[in-house]
Amino acid sequence: MEFYYLAEPPGLDGAVLFDKDESRHIVRSRRHRVGDRVFAVDGQGNRFLVELSEADGHLVRGRVLDSARSVFEPRVSLTLAQGVLKGDRLAEVVTAAVQLGVNSVLPFKSARTVGACGPARVARLRKVALEAMKSSRRAIWPEVSEPVGFGELVERSGEFDSVLVAWEQENEQAFGDVLDRTVERVMLVIGPEGGFEEAEVGMFKQAGAKTFSLGPRPMRAELAGVVAVSALLFALGEMMPASKCQDRKEV
Amino acid sequence: MEFYYLAEPPGLDGAVLFDKDESRHIVRSRRHRVGDRVFAVDGQGNRFLVELSEADGHLVRGRVLDSARSVFEPRVSLTLAQGVLKGDRLAEVVTAAVQLGVNSVLPFKSARTVGACGPARVARLRKVALEAMKSSRRAIWPEVSEPVGFGELVERSGEFDSVLVAWEQENEQAFGDVLDRTVERVMLVIGPEGGFEEAEVGMFKQAGAKTFSLGPRPMRAELAGVVAVSALLFALGEMMPASKCQDRKEV
Repeated sequence: MEFYYLAEPPGLDGAVLFDKDESRHIVRSRRHRVGDRVFAVDGQGNRFLVELSEADGHLVRGRVLDSARSVFEPRVSLTLAQGVLKGDRLAEVVTAAVQLGVNSVLPFKSARTVGACGPARVARLRKVALEAMKSSRRAIWPEVSEPVGFGELVERSGEFDSVLVAWEQENEQAFGDVLDRTVERVMLVIGPEGGFEEAEVGMFKQAGAKTFSLGPRPMRAELAGVVAVSALLFALGEMMPASKCQDRKEV
Repeated sequence: MEFYYLAEPPGLDGAVLFDKDESRHIVRSRRHRVGDRVFAVDGQGNRFLVELSEADGHLVRGRVLDSARSVFEPRVSLTLAQGVLKGDRLAEVVTAAVQLGVNSVLPFKSARTVGACGPARVARLRKVALEAMKSSRRAIWPEVSEPVGFGELVERSGEFDSVLVAWEQENEQAFGDVLDRTVERVMLVIGPEGGFEEAEVGMFKQAGAKTFSLGPRPMRAELAGVVAVSALLFALGEMMPASKCQDRKEV
């Protein structure tokens, strides 16, 4: 079972129209026909049970039979700030982070980042996030921001309850030591392959961020984000089975 | 700082000889010279501080100045049993699992596995594990076994204190519910992309294994292993900073 993306919200009468890409996918790849019931999401946290009323490869229309806020989204709003990585590695991080349950991904450039992340790449990463949302049956399409410079990254820290920075030279605090289980808005920061400079870590600390170690075994930058997101969601109890999710009504 | 692999244990006089590949790497890529001190590991859990006494691109010799059991290996012995995956995805899993700290990887075939894993591929995965050991400064070269069939996988369950099977249809138990924090030998089982059949899960349960959910958001098979290993090592306190590792003597 796959979820489909509704770019336009349902009309007041419950009529929905899938866009061209999604229509083609629903009919050509998934072979749905008129009368089939499918799940759709709006990327804003809402799930819909839709009955298809018109289905050809260019245009799929349907009618909403039921709708609800998704109960399967983590309660914590988690932003993964990831230093820009070369090649396809940023796309891998986005896929994994979205499947796990992050709310947004914020690429950034710091002293040691290597590789560029221009508008075309950001556009591609947004598509990657959309696909990951659908495959993991999420209802929120996590935002992938334009990359920011280091100064702006630190400034944005103020928007979060807690900013946690993975730092390979942190010698005191483990992730569990800095993780406050009551937070609602968290930013996890993973540096580029070469790590952060001392001065950068100093700026983070001055802005109230906490640094943590991911353990004594160094790992690649693209793995660190996945590990930290996994540990955080596990620690916050956000990996419970579907049946145990909040008892909000499910479609 | 990178660690180098010693295929042969040091002689009684502390003399070491690196093999051809490693010699070339030490001299050509890392540009080490006679008199340099480097860290080496034997893949069995021992670390050595070595002073190079002879260094050309074909042959590097040295002398052990100090040696110790590595204090940076997890105390839990963790085997990741992973359903065979297509293409390079098994190599990605091996890299991540070794960097995180598993003790061995056991590929297996079950009803829904797709893709083959013949001797050439196993040989390659072993090399991948070696590289990941070195880059993550581990002292243990995790074994990558020949793939086993499902029956043998279940039989092997008996070798572990705890066998934990990720199952997307598990509707009661979260990972935290089945994780006994006192275990010494654990096998984590991650199915192939299509998951396990009910009958397979039944066989596991009969053999004493426990099934768990990784949460309500489905994820790709190659991500599930990384997530489960991360959560397990985090829960067992195996991601503490280097300074907090067991106070065994470090090289």
